[in-house]
Amino acid sequence: MEAKANGPKEEQSHSSLHGPTNPMVTPLLTDLYQFTMAYAYWKAGKHQERAVFDLFFRKNPFGGEYTIFAGLEECIQFIANFKLTEDEISFLRSSLPPNCEDGFFNYLRGIDCSDVEVCAISEGSVVFPKIPLLRIEGPVAVVQLLETPFVNLVNYASLVATNAARHRFVAGKSKTLLEFGLRRAQGPDGGISASKYCYMGGFDATSNVAAGRLFGIPLRGTHSHAFVSSFMSLDEIVDKSIRSIDGSSVCEDFVSLVQTWLSKIQWIHSLNGIFGETNQSELAAFTTYALAFPTSFLALVDTYDVMKSGIPNFCAVALALADLGYKAVGIRLDSGDLAYLSCESRKFFCAIEKEFGVAGFGKMIITASNDLNEETLDALNKQGHEVDAFGIGTYLVTCYAQAALGCVFKLVEINNQPRIKLSEDVSKVSIPCKKRFYRLYGREGYPLVDIMTGENEPPPKAAERILCRHPFNESKRAYVVPQHVEELLKCYWPGSSGKTREELPPIKEIRDRCIRQLDQMRPDHMRRLNPTPYKVSVSAKLYDFIHFLWLNEAPVGELQ
Amino acid sequence: MEAKANGPKEEQSHSSLHGPTNPMVTPLLTDLYQFTMAYAYWKAGKHQERAVFDLFFRKNPFGGEYTIFAGLEECIQFIANFKLTEDEISFLRSSLPPNCEDGFFNYLRGIDCSDVEVCAISEGSVVFPKIPLLRIEGPVAVVQLLETPFVNLVNYASLVATNAARHRFVAGKSKTLLEFGLRRAQGPDGGISASKYCYMGGFDATSNVAAGRLFGIPLRGTHSHAFVSSFMSLDEIVDKSIRSIDGSSVCEDFVSLVQTWLSKIQWIHSLNGIFGETNQSELAAFTTYALAFPTSFLALVDTYDVMKSGIPNFCAVALALADLGYKAVGIRLDSGDLAYLSCESRKFFCAIEKEFGVAGFGKMIITASNDLNEETLDALNKQGHEVDAFGIGTYLVTCYAQAALGCVFKLVEINNQPRIKLSEDVSKVSIPCKKRFYRLYGREGYPLVDIMTGENEPPPKAAERILCRHPFNESKRAYVVPQHVEELLKCYWPGSSGKTREELPPIKEIRDRCIRQLDQMRPDHMRRLNPTPYKVSVSAKLYDFIHFLWLNEAPVGELQ
Repeated sequence: MEAKANGPKEEQSHSSLHGPTNPMVTPLLTDLYQFTMAYAYWKAGKHQERAVFDLFFRKNPFGGEYTIFAGLEECIQFIANFKLTEDEISFLRSSLPPNCEDGFFNYLRGIDCSDVEVCAISEGSVVFPKIPLLRIEGPVAVVQLLETPFVNLVNYASLVATNAARHRFVAGKSKTLLEFGLRRAQGPDGGISASKYCYMGGFDATSNVAAGRLFGIPLRGTHSHAFVSSFMSLDEIVDKSIRSIDGSSVCEDFVSLVQTWLSKIQWIHSLNGIFGETNQSELAAFTTYALAFPTSFLALVDTYDVMKSGIPNFCAVALALADLGYKAVGIRLDSGDLAYLSCESRKFFCAIEKEFGVAGFGKMIITASNDLNEETLDALNKQGHEVDAFGIGTYLVTCYAQAALGCVFKLVEINNQPRIKLSEDVSKVSIPCKKRFYRLYGREGYPLVDIMTGENEPPPKAAERILCRHPFNESKRAYVVPQHVEELLKCYWPGSSGKTREELPPIKEIRDRCIRQLDQMRPDHMRRLNPTPYKVSVSAKLYDFIHFLWLNEAPVGELQ
Repeated sequence: MEAKANGPKEEQSHSSLHGPTNPMVTPLLTDLYQFTMAYAYWKAGKHQERAVFDLFFRKNPFGGEYTIFAGLEECIQFIANFKLTEDEISFLRSSLPPNCEDGFFNYLRGIDCSDVEVCAISEGSVVFPKIPLLRIEGPVAVVQLLETPFVNLVNYASLVATNAARHRFVAGKSKTLLEFGLRRAQGPDGGISASKYCYMGGFDATSNVAAGRLFGIPLRGTHSHAFVSSFMSLDEIVDKSIRSIDGSSVCEDFVSLVQTWLSKIQWIHSLNGIFGETNQSELAAFTTYALAFPTSFLALVDTYDVMKSGIPNFCAVALALADLGYKAVGIRLDSGDLAYLSCESRKFFCAIEKEFGVAGFGKMIITASNDLNEETLDALNKQGHEVDAFGIGTYLVTCYAQAALGCVFKLVEINNQPRIKLSEDVSKVSIPCKKRFYRLYGREGYPLVDIMTGENEPPPKAAERILCRHPFNESKRAYVVPQHVEELLKCYWPGSSGKTREELPPIKEIRDRCIRQLDQMRPDHMRRLNPTPYKVSVSAKLYDFIHFLWLNEAPVGELQ
């Protein structure tokens, strides 16, 4: 059944700042150390120092070379409503050592995010390692408090949106993709977030009613195995009457009509021997379901045996509906060899169309749904199949292939002083300074490279040559003459900066952006096997500065 | 910093039925097909038929042979407050085909769970495949609506509690285990649920303030790398005074005291050559943190270089604190070779204790926290280390090694008629009938085997021989004479049955049960490598009945 794509619960929800979707996202949804640090900053009189933090990840997930950025709206909804309650403050007081001074709790009472500025890449964009997704600037103690909720809200959102985009890439544009993951998701809003961000990443619909209501995502669902096995026989069906689609007539005994069709199917020569006696519980379940939903009959056909029972039973009911002017939607396969069963089912449908001249019967929609993931979709494609729609759950929503994205939140400047975090692992060294970020596009319209510059450097210009350097590898550098230059960060929360606040677009627009940007990527970055890494660079000036600072901070070793 | 273990937000919360922790858990947090089935049942007049469903899983996670059952309280909180609102009903009406009859929405208006009975194994129990965790009985349409939220609430809860128990098993009982996963969790309540269920599975504390508040879990946290790199030099410290622990004196220049100690450490012969000039930003950060938290000074020592800077800086501050009567808590290592660095740090602490006679300085707590999981804990144990506490995040809370548990919800009886779901895969055949479940204990006190019987069979008795059969494998069977018999299901939601409602215990009691039950298991079921499967069986009578029903429902094949 396809529910209409209803508007989100409150039409204005995306432009108004009503708070995070999940009311559990409060200022206390953070690590204790953010509050202990806030106290130490406050005690040292350092809490108001202006700090800049970058939120970024270091490695694309799932062995790929791209990531979809998601979770921005929830971050903005969170800070727009950031305020500690008296209850929360008393809890904090009871959680910190008793000798913490009262002044600190008064300070907490007053804080909000009116002095914080958040710039970000647009939600739904294709993004790459090291380039910050968000740049957060404000009083150091307040911005620290945002670290954990921001990283939490972005990590899973981006991970599951990327997973959805990857599933879409393998399935192809012509297939319908349904997210069926709620029951296996990591907790209730693992489920709700999954539905939201899978839709953003290119899925068509969800089974999750709450997500449909909250975000206006199209809903899908028919029935389960339990429905089929809850019936014993056709005798259970009491009200057997059904009106024809145009209302012109009433069929008083739909059950007999179904039975008549079943026996006719049994005599089709080309289907001879495929099936004998079908399961009567199943036939009763299908008939009951069709009586309830004559306009949208879709049956789960694998409770007993797909080819010996499910498909013939389905066809009998679908043909009986056709007599009354109704067009059945199709079937769902939830076990067994999906490639084989989908092809056999298609043959069966085509044989019926040919035998009885029911136009379009061969094109019945075949949905498949058993523990699908990127690999099984790929394998199905290689084998050849007749599936039109995929219902994907566990592997999609739990991001089973890689259950976490490693977004981090690093201090890059405080009091106008650039800061660097060193590490024995070069890939973990952070890139200092308040920066700007650009995407440079080539002549074919593909993005060529992303570049970071200092905040006050002149921006790269179209048709002008610019040197792009690897941030840490001296020998990796290239001149680029971009056809077009796009500045990546926009201001989504101006704080006291006086900048204009970028509107939060509705989810449908974010989804369109995501699909458009994925289409725009050079194909070799996108392939599943050995994709080419997309290049991320720094300007020559920033490169020099990073390395100056690095030498300054690193202790000089002594060989012994 | 160790916060006191506060009581949960509302002391009475565990005995009162105030609803699920997450307010997003509503009757709409379900799959659309639960409502389409409800409509079809209602349309056929079948919605009130009494059905029994079992909720169980088929395979233990993480390659182990046991699982911890968690999530029960949330399920009961959910059904105790199950009621559709008018808004929810209008949304459903807009999501179903327009020709669905009004009577159905009136029916939805009236439903609640007063006629549903839920029996369950106690939360925190060690459980095994096939034995239902919950048995739900009630009107088929209503119980179907519960499927998705119940499975959602149990799957991740049980998975992450099991993961926590497995981490505890490897770390050993003497270590402190801290859950640090909020930022990498799958969404906001991926984080909150993780904190709750990791504590249940044997962790000691969490960094998640919201979870601390909701469930009374002890909180931990000190400072991050950003705190360290936010300082430039000791000159930044303005208020340098600190009172001694007994209040008897004031040290006016704590910074100089720290510097004096740093130069003294430099002259310790046995530490000669380990370090030269330490990082001054770091020293300023540690000094500031100690001034704020003199009673609970714990420093993150790897921002620049652990042995060349972090450890000497920490020791200087800790020794200065010791002069004023304060005892520093210890250090945290968050990168590098944790085994090596913990041993070197310990040596350094012991050298200081020896040199300056500061009692207990060698026993400084060493916490480690970089991408830890079962494997890295095991590797650390094999190498030898000096870590006292582990902070575990990503791999623990996302259940990275296996991101989903496959709980299912199967119809086993309707209208007093047993139902079976067949499958080509024998392990997926469901065990029919309303049943009872017992754990049989042997002479050594270990559980020997779990057994399922029909609802009305006489229960197994201590000291009486009983035949335990594998449910599907004819040849696997054994006589058992139990020392002690425990019935597993208790009634947590009596509905209209008139039974007494089992109280929901507080989380601390559930945690104790879990730890106790894990201790009680035979060690070969618990080991990480090739554990012995625990046996799950059916009574002889149930065995015969399953196979009678199976033959009855399965279509007879034809070899061609």
